[in-house]
Amino acid sequence: MKSVNIPAIAVQRLTLYARNLALLDQKGMEVVSSAGLADICGVNPAQIRKDLGYFGQFGIRGVGYYVKELAYEIRKILGLEKEWRLALVGVGNLGSALLRHAQFLDQSYTFVQVGQITVAPVKALKRLVKDKGVEIGVIAIGPRWAQQVADEFVGAGVRGILNFTPVQLRCPSDLHVENVDFTRMLDMLCYRLTLNQ
Amino acid sequence: MKSVNIPAIAVQRLTLYARNLALLDQKGMEVVSSAGLADICGVNPAQIRKDLGYFGQFGIRGVGYYVKELAYEIRKILGLEKEWRLALVGVGNLGSALLRHAQFLDQSYTFVQVGQITVAPVKALKRLVKDKGVEIGVIAIGPRWAQQVADEFVGAGVRGILNFTPVQLRCPSDLHVENVDFTRMLDMLCYRLTLNQ
Repeated sequence: MKSVNIPAIAVQRLTLYARNLALLDQKGMEVVSSAGLADICGVNPAQIRKDLGYFGQFGIRGVGYYVKELAYEIRKILGLEKEWRLALVGVGNLGSALLRHAQFLDQSYTFVQVGQITVAPVKALKRLVKDKGVEIGVIAIGPRWAQQVADEFVGAGVRGILNFTPVQLRCPSDLHVENVDFTRMLDMLCYRLTLNQ
Repeated sequence: MKSVNIPAIAVQRLTLYARNLALLDQKGMEVVSSAGLADICGVNPAQIRKDLGYFGQFGIRGVGYYVKELAYEIRKILGLEKEWRLALVGVGNLGSALLRHAQFLDQSYTFVQVGQITVAPVKALKRLVKDKGVEIGVIAIGPRWAQQVADEFVGAGVRGILNFTPVQLRCPSDLHVENVDFTRMLDMLCYRLTLNQ
């Protein structure tokens, strides 16, 4: 897989295609044209072909894409054919919304434990990560405790963190941190609205 | 402003720079080097210069960027120097997390009303949008009601929607919809972890 040189934005779009293919599949749709998928995803068909082209040859000329098959292929590319184990710290507001979201989409993410841990006992988290093979820590608590929980996750040996707090976490460089920043999405929306005024 | 040809990913990074500059400003930092800002944002300095280059000349050679000034300039580019009025439907889980997030970052977003509206009375929403000059509707309720609330927002005349539900909303093409999809962020994280296995 020549994935090293693939732009992040193309991978972001892959996750969008995967999401919409899953929704089409849930609706019982078996085949979707390149134009149809593009329309649903809000991109142009050439973009889809280009993005998929990084990873191989997909779809059948004059037919389109088999929904289940393409969804599977993209999930494989993204590394989602395996089960990912997550531990969630903070189930108050965001945490439970996240769980419902993942359930709705029938994702293969497995949350091994969910707890309203604000001042988490370090040893418990460490044991959980080791015993359950947790690879990803999800931080969905108040900003005040974010760095402390991140440190605990790092110490426990997770490989990645999904950070829902507005705090800029300080983590080792070999750990992958993905920040979910609501207000940045709002910023993007306002930029678009400003352009089209 | 030659903003029409600016790639979305560059604008996404601008929101990242703006966010981190605001955090530096909160910490009382007045000047930041190009390398310093790049490090905090997890990009390389050349990328920052290129992204800012779309919009003009910023920073002083050998000094770096004035934090407050650059933050202001980027906010101006993004259209954030004005007050944006939002109406939030669904304050249960996500809604209150979003409000706390925005407050923490001291954003200029103004939520004109917040209510746990699941089956919202259409007339009330329409009047609110008109009376308070709401431009953006935020949908943070369960998937079941998402499309209905979107329709109400559209009917009431908002210009954009921030959609926190996993539902693919059907809206008029001139309306801007920004989807916040948690599991897509997880997908990105898993892709990176898979690459580095």
